[in-house]
Amino acid sequence: MADIEGADIERAGRDGRTPKRRVAVLISGGGSNLQALLDAAAAPDYPAEIALVVSNVAGVHGLDRAAKAGVPTVTLPHRDFDDRAAFEAAIAENLASNAIDLICLAGFMRILTADFVRAWEGRMLNIHPSLLPAFKGRDVQARALAAGVKISGCTVHLVTADLDDGPIVAQAAVPVAADDTVASLSARILAEEHRLYPRALAWLAAGALKVADGQVQLTGAVTSSERLQSPGI
Amino acid sequence: MADIEGADIERAGRDGRTPKRRVAVLISGGGSNLQALLDAAAAPDYPAEIALVVSNVAGVHGLDRAAKAGVPTVTLPHRDFDDRAAFEAAIAENLASNAIDLICLAGFMRILTADFVRAWEGRMLNIHPSLLPAFKGRDVQARALAAGVKISGCTVHLVTADLDDGPIVAQAAVPVAADDTVASLSARILAEEHRLYPRALAWLAAGALKVADGQVQLTGAVTSSERLQSPGI
Repeated sequence: MADIEGADIERAGRDGRTPKRRVAVLISGGGSNLQALLDAAAAPDYPAEIALVVSNVAGVHGLDRAAKAGVPTVTLPHRDFDDRAAFEAAIAENLASNAIDLICLAGFMRILTADFVRAWEGRMLNIHPSLLPAFKGRDVQARALAAGVKISGCTVHLVTADLDDGPIVAQAAVPVAADDTVASLSARILAEEHRLYPRALAWLAAGALKVADGQVQLTGAVTSSERLQSPGI
Repeated sequence: MADIEGADIERAGRDGRTPKRRVAVLISGGGSNLQALLDAAAAPDYPAEIALVVSNVAGVHGLDRAAKAGVPTVTLPHRDFDDRAAFEAAIAENLASNAIDLICLAGFMRILTADFVRAWEGRMLNIHPSLLPAFKGRDVQARALAAGVKISGCTVHLVTADLDDGPIVAQAAVPVAADDTVASLSARILAEEHRLYPRALAWLAAGALKVADGQVQLTGAVTSSERLQSPGI
């Protein structure tokens, strides 16, 4: 073990396991995807730990979820900062001081600058409630319903400077029912998000993702497709 | 039965059943979706019969499939006509003389004019090898692979003047494998097309489709979502 640096020995623990990757989750609200990540990370063999939760909104339920799980939180209301650069500098300081390796965006409602995104290229995930490239942006489920699609889903992707356009890590599909509302479709998709996001983070944390030509390949015996859970006709 | 017109009595047959809707399938090639429709229509209770196959290319395998099933065919090479209007007028004449009620496009590689499409609004289906609205147009599977999607599929939609943009009738999803090629992904999607298209035509022929605000609703106890058939991870 002489070739392992001091900090790694410390983080690996006495059993010599690979150190877990330290993840910050950025939220703006209730944080149900945060909860899914916290729950997954509670498993001893999960390759990442949720080491910090950052919210740009004070008092949201996601902060309570983090506190209950014993995870440090920081609230950085974006309106308290002179500009976007100052806001992101504050985020960056907190990421650095907590030795964060990876970021998961989970309902974080601020668009990050290209500079910030580039600094975390290949190390920042987002989850989006559609089968990208369909329905980028906001009001996703309403637009899917208006388009009359019969199948929708969710996508975990690496974050790039283009909104909802980074390399796709994993997707899951759900059926759209004839009587679906935005609420009912959102709930069905969210259930898949909660399954998909922890899996995608595990792949990233374990070093199982390889990106080439904007496409993500998984190394090892995993596949990124998900079974459609709903009953067929 | 006094309120049924003579022609309907004739088409309903001696058992008084609802007459089958007469369908023309327009092709340009091998016609594997045509075969799926022919096979489905062979069932006595299927609400449509394939009454005509129109090809704009001579000698294609789809014409053989039709002949083998005893379905009349007509070949109308588009280059034999002065312009698009003359080509479509010839199609329309054949549709009229064969008392066609509904049209299925099945690998028909000519774009129809807005006039022709309007004349068949609500009575013409197309199948497209993607989960629309993603990947409209040509080279669909290559573009899906380049985008790195993990789930793709196929869509049956009512044809409108906007390319691949009509009301969606049904969709089916398939996983994209890490080592997929255009050929392997196309084959996987095609297998779903062969399941989906006959079902969608049955709904249209049975009068089970209602279109409102560009969205298709199914009347009765059917749902247009399809189970994703692939194994999960």
